[in-house]
Amino acid sequence: MMLTVTLNAALDLTYRVPALTPHTTHRVTEVIERPGGKGVNVARVLAALGHEVTVTGFAGGGTGRVLRERLADEPRVTVAFAPVAGATRRTVAVADAATGDTTQLNEPGPTVTPAEWAAFLDTYEALVHRPGTTAVALCGSLPPGVPVGAYALLVRAARAAHVPVLLDTSGEPLRRAVAARPDIIKPNAEELAELTGFHEPVRATRDARRRGAHAVVASLGADGLFALTPDGGWQARPPAPVRGNPTGAGDSAVAGLLSGLAEGLPWPDRLARAVALSAATVAAPAAGEFDRTTYEDLLTRVAVTGRRAAA
Amino acid sequence: MMLTVTLNAALDLTYRVPALTPHTTHRVTEVIERPGGKGVNVARVLAALGHEVTVTGFAGGGTGRVLRERLADEPRVTVAFAPVAGATRRTVAVADAATGDTTQLNEPGPTVTPAEWAAFLDTYEALVHRPGTTAVALCGSLPPGVPVGAYALLVRAARAAHVPVLLDTSGEPLRRAVAARPDIIKPNAEELAELTGFHEPVRATRDARRRGAHAVVASLGADGLFALTPDGGWQARPPAPVRGNPTGAGDSAVAGLLSGLAEGLPWPDRLARAVALSAATVAAPAAGEFDRTTYEDLLTRVAVTGRRAAA
Repeated sequence: MMLTVTLNAALDLTYRVPALTPHTTHRVTEVIERPGGKGVNVARVLAALGHEVTVTGFAGGGTGRVLRERLADEPRVTVAFAPVAGATRRTVAVADAATGDTTQLNEPGPTVTPAEWAAFLDTYEALVHRPGTTAVALCGSLPPGVPVGAYALLVRAARAAHVPVLLDTSGEPLRRAVAARPDIIKPNAEELAELTGFHEPVRATRDARRRGAHAVVASLGADGLFALTPDGGWQARPPAPVRGNPTGAGDSAVAGLLSGLAEGLPWPDRLARAVALSAATVAAPAAGEFDRTTYEDLLTRVAVTGRRAAA
Repeated sequence: MMLTVTLNAALDLTYRVPALTPHTTHRVTEVIERPGGKGVNVARVLAALGHEVTVTGFAGGGTGRVLRERLADEPRVTVAFAPVAGATRRTVAVADAATGDTTQLNEPGPTVTPAEWAAFLDTYEALVHRPGTTAVALCGSLPPGVPVGAYALLVRAARAAHVPVLLDTSGEPLRRAVAARPDIIKPNAEELAELTGFHEPVRATRDARRRGAHAVVASLGADGLFALTPDGGWQARPPAPVRGNPTGAGDSAVAGLLSGLAEGLPWPDRLARAVALSAATVAAPAAGEFDRTTYEDLLTRVAVTGRRAAA
């Protein structure tokens, strides 16, 4: 059983409108509502691949109730959110039918009280110590009220429970948590540059490892993934550029890395899986879903280059 | 006890953003969530004035659950929605902090099945026949699936139960229902012109009465209300132009007219109440609320001109 943590989970709404014109009234022609937040997206991809996965974090209010119910309906997903008095945030993506462009409106999320944070820590401790927990992913931004050192605490708790931990966040929460020595961090190029001050992937990943991360996997958009790990350094690229919607591609890459971590796969295989899942998500018609046929096809065709470290 | 019907009730969200820029991502700085839909707004104004009021219509899904819970928390409001399998719609008003302008996104609402519509009719029949029901207001648009003659049916059922009925809708549902002889219709100038083909208020209200409405109260924006009734014709105007947000001003006017109808007030008093409530709603800082001090002040100062019909 893998575990994903989404402290600022969301109910994601997509509104289709003919064209968004500020300061006018629009009839929304189609509404899609689905559970969201990075860790929730990762869990959904894992479940679709056939893995058992538990989701935790916070859920509250009417939106939180819908989030719990919808996730509980998904096969292989166990829902273990801690309660919060405020309501789970919504995100609204307004999609222009004319241009295909989207306009994003993100609610801030509920403010978490110290007592709610303490109760979540108990839930999390119990989950990481549960027999059969094979890996944990900590994903996304922190909601208001959660201390900036939250992920550092969660990384340490996972390591103390001997559960490997992957971290996908940015800014100060990432900086603090890297020092707690997570097994994997997965920043994009911009997040990695913000952490290290370096824009060149080799230097930046080396610096991030020096700061405490055991392995650094930088996502480079169409160029795939660049990984620096205790076992060596690799770049994994899709065989050809993939056209489509990049929403959720990063979360699919995390699902690939996390399942590879849980299974103890060699790094080149983990990276191939992550790149194939990510590209299959870009290629899928619905945002955040992945196309299974594309995934299975790409899995054998991702080019992984690099070298194993000297023993 | 007054009754308001909102067939397409809503959960109204207001999102404050610094400025809405299409095809970019926005952090929403403030979220206001409240029960909405015309009949729900009317009920809230009535309750604020100290009246007991029952709300009915349809509510469903996670949004419908929040709608029921929030309304049940309001004093003097009894919640009697019929269930619908689909989810109650949301409306999102995106308010630019810079300009104060809003961009409106309205979900279509759930499709009502014939069985759900039949079950609502039973609920409605029971409510209009309940001893102590003094007046009913039928408000707003029809959700998908509800027959276009719905309001005609509801007007007839109220009249059969000897409960006076006010109708506030537009287009074909209004045209059909006027023939069923509602006690009051409250179109705005545009809706009245669409019904009658006349833009001049005297001619248009006369034509609407000829079509079946006992009394026609046309809302003329800053010019107040123009009423043609079996008792005579009047115009009621606020003593001075009111600056502010007109959202909900029409619903406040309906609340004034409905409570006047329930109490059997003389028409000039009903109109003064409706205009004072409407202007006090425009003047209130929060959209759809009314300012009580402004209301009480205006109530004595609304100018009602016109004449009583010959006996």
